[in-house]
Amino acid sequence: MSEGVDEPVAALRALALVQFDARPDVIDLGWGHPDPDLLPLEELRSAADEAARRWGPDLYAYGFAQGPGPLITWLSERLREVDGRAPDPASIVVSAGASGALDLLVTLSARPGDVALIESPTYHIAVKLLRDHGLEVVPIKRLADGPDLDALNAMLDRLDGAGRRPALFYTIPTFHNPTGAVTPLDRRKELVRVAEERGLLVVEDDAYRELFYDEPPPPSLWSLAEPGTVVRVGSFSKTLAPGIRLGYLTGEPALTARLAQSGLLDSGGGIGHVPGLVVAVLAEGGFYARHVDRLRVAYRERRDALVDGLVQGLPAEVEVNRPQGGFFVWLGLPTGYSATRLLEAAQAKGASFMPGNAFSATDGLDANLRLSFSRYGPEQLREAARRIAQALRDSGQAH
Amino acid sequence: MSEGVDEPVAALRALALVQFDARPDVIDLGWGHPDPDLLPLEELRSAADEAARRWGPDLYAYGFAQGPGPLITWLSERLREVDGRAPDPASIVVSAGASGALDLLVTLSARPGDVALIESPTYHIAVKLLRDHGLEVVPIKRLADGPDLDALNAMLDRLDGAGRRPALFYTIPTFHNPTGAVTPLDRRKELVRVAEERGLLVVEDDAYRELFYDEPPPPSLWSLAEPGTVVRVGSFSKTLAPGIRLGYLTGEPALTARLAQSGLLDSGGGIGHVPGLVVAVLAEGGFYARHVDRLRVAYRERRDALVDGLVQGLPAEVEVNRPQGGFFVWLGLPTGYSATRLLEAAQAKGASFMPGNAFSATDGLDANLRLSFSRYGPEQLREAARRIAQALRDSGQAH
Repeated sequence: MSEGVDEPVAALRALALVQFDARPDVIDLGWGHPDPDLLPLEELRSAADEAARRWGPDLYAYGFAQGPGPLITWLSERLREVDGRAPDPASIVVSAGASGALDLLVTLSARPGDVALIESPTYHIAVKLLRDHGLEVVPIKRLADGPDLDALNAMLDRLDGAGRRPALFYTIPTFHNPTGAVTPLDRRKELVRVAEERGLLVVEDDAYRELFYDEPPPPSLWSLAEPGTVVRVGSFSKTLAPGIRLGYLTGEPALTARLAQSGLLDSGGGIGHVPGLVVAVLAEGGFYARHVDRLRVAYRERRDALVDGLVQGLPAEVEVNRPQGGFFVWLGLPTGYSATRLLEAAQAKGASFMPGNAFSATDGLDANLRLSFSRYGPEQLREAARRIAQALRDSGQAH
Repeated sequence: MSEGVDEPVAALRALALVQFDARPDVIDLGWGHPDPDLLPLEELRSAADEAARRWGPDLYAYGFAQGPGPLITWLSERLREVDGRAPDPASIVVSAGASGALDLLVTLSARPGDVALIESPTYHIAVKLLRDHGLEVVPIKRLADGPDLDALNAMLDRLDGAGRRPALFYTIPTFHNPTGAVTPLDRRKELVRVAEERGLLVVEDDAYRELFYDEPPPPSLWSLAEPGTVVRVGSFSKTLAPGIRLGYLTGEPALTARLAQSGLLDSGGGIGHVPGLVVAVLAEGGFYARHVDRLRVAYRERRDALVDGLVQGLPAEVEVNRPQGGFFVWLGLPTGYSATRLLEAAQAKGASFMPGNAFSATDGLDANLRLSFSRYGPEQLREAARRIAQALRDSGQAH
């Protein structure tokens, strides 16, 4: 085996059914998972049944490599409703979740040793995925309103000077993970202009677009850019269910054709055939749209329960945002406070979260922490806020 | 975009439901797809239903990254029955089909510019997948009883001399695609010894193991080798249904841990959660084993229909094998005959196949062709054999 496997590797956890690793008496806000109570179980079950009845052997055959036609046709229309413009069906490729889309894109468009630019902070497992491909990950600081474009330009200059071109810039402009922030429209346009001028491929992680709790978010970078500048990856993991492993990307047709004709999708007959057709059934008659509406109401209540609990319990010096969508609240502790130390104290009290350094390329975010309000109901979220506030007081880190 | 996307790319086919591209009046033996009539539709449907009832929200949650525990536990026992030895559960990772296993393995264990050794002929789409990752594909001639080990050793010497180590050797020892041949036990042991001595990672594509029609095949290379020498990839695409996109690999625990902790599987919560649990239900009470037994009977009849039809219709100089398992009959035309020209004539008569060059790294197999007996019933296979024999006569390529 070659250099990909020389990192130290922890032993596997004992066999389990699901990823969530429940700890007794701990309300664990570390996981960005949907609330099990909000999964449309009966509808998924009956849509799977209907798909089997309707398509018979075609449901279980090698699928169309680009993704099943009925899903793509609907998805194009859905994106017209929730984004700035509709992608032509030829611009869509169905994938195994957003991560499957990112993985396939990187396999075909980047080469080890290439630079992948990321925002910092950013979704930590996307960074792991980029590193799995041997990419050199270079962070660009994220400001409150999006990536620091001066820093981005300076880094592009620096790479240019070294004769290097980054393979991509991975960004989450909408309900950012971990900060929950939204890059406003004017900053989106500026970012797109930089990318167009510099020939930079932007990979836009758009997994949270539909889960807005106040105003709809601005249009995607993909919808604002010239074809070929932005690839947007999307997901049904947050709006339907992560277990179905269904996502997609939108990009220019030369790229989507290349992806659909890849060995992986050609050999497998696509990679989201059964779940794609199940979702095509769910989309009929408007169930998907109604379900997302219900999720907005439910997650808004959860967001408010957590944020209100935190604001009430924590000292005023702690910065608490109220994200307009997505799954995450991002806290800023006053200078000198450590999220890592707070985590220990909080876990002793029965609450957990992700410390900011997990999302940092440079370990410079120990004054921050991410709390996910997606997995628990309002009562538990309020209780978690109480425990964290108590932990902050008891740990001697607050007055 | 960088060098991965600079190949010429054909436009996408218009949206479709499935990969199989039906042509009116053509019996197309070019596709290695299961017969739609042999898919266990009702059982898949009711197992999906049962999985939803039994696991509720856990069915649709982010799954355990290595793959769902109930599937892995059963699979370990199943491999004890159909292979030389059972893998420890920690040696198994669940994947999106055999191609998903190969893709993830290559992402983590090879680097562009690395050499990937293949047999020639071999499964053409695996070669495409290796090339998607930027690997330099180097063919080793396949003899009737497996890869030419002298040629393999000579190539390893040559690479050694150039200071290069191949990332892997991809081989299909059991019911080989496209030739249908089985590497016998003694040759398996020799190959394993070479790999162990030379530190060569062997990737064994074992997708057809369970579909034997005469004698069970020899044990896998994986089961014969020291841990770390062989990674075996397996699939439920041929024995259950390709649309469910379920496969696995077995390898040493340090590797499987690395794969299970990859960004792709960590971010996604595994990649075969729902279908893996559906198959775990199907395995209960022995349905899977009984279904495979039925497939053996059905595909044996199809194999015999095609082979008998070819033997009766074709001139004696054409070599026709009778594969002991898998999906493929491999024909050898007498010197001077061209499979490419025969294909044109056959298509005009309403039969199709894959010419040998599709499986060759050097286009040196135009005297061979691959016929798949997997997708059609016996009557159509006999008719296809008649049409191909007629085409051979009419095209002036036979007496």
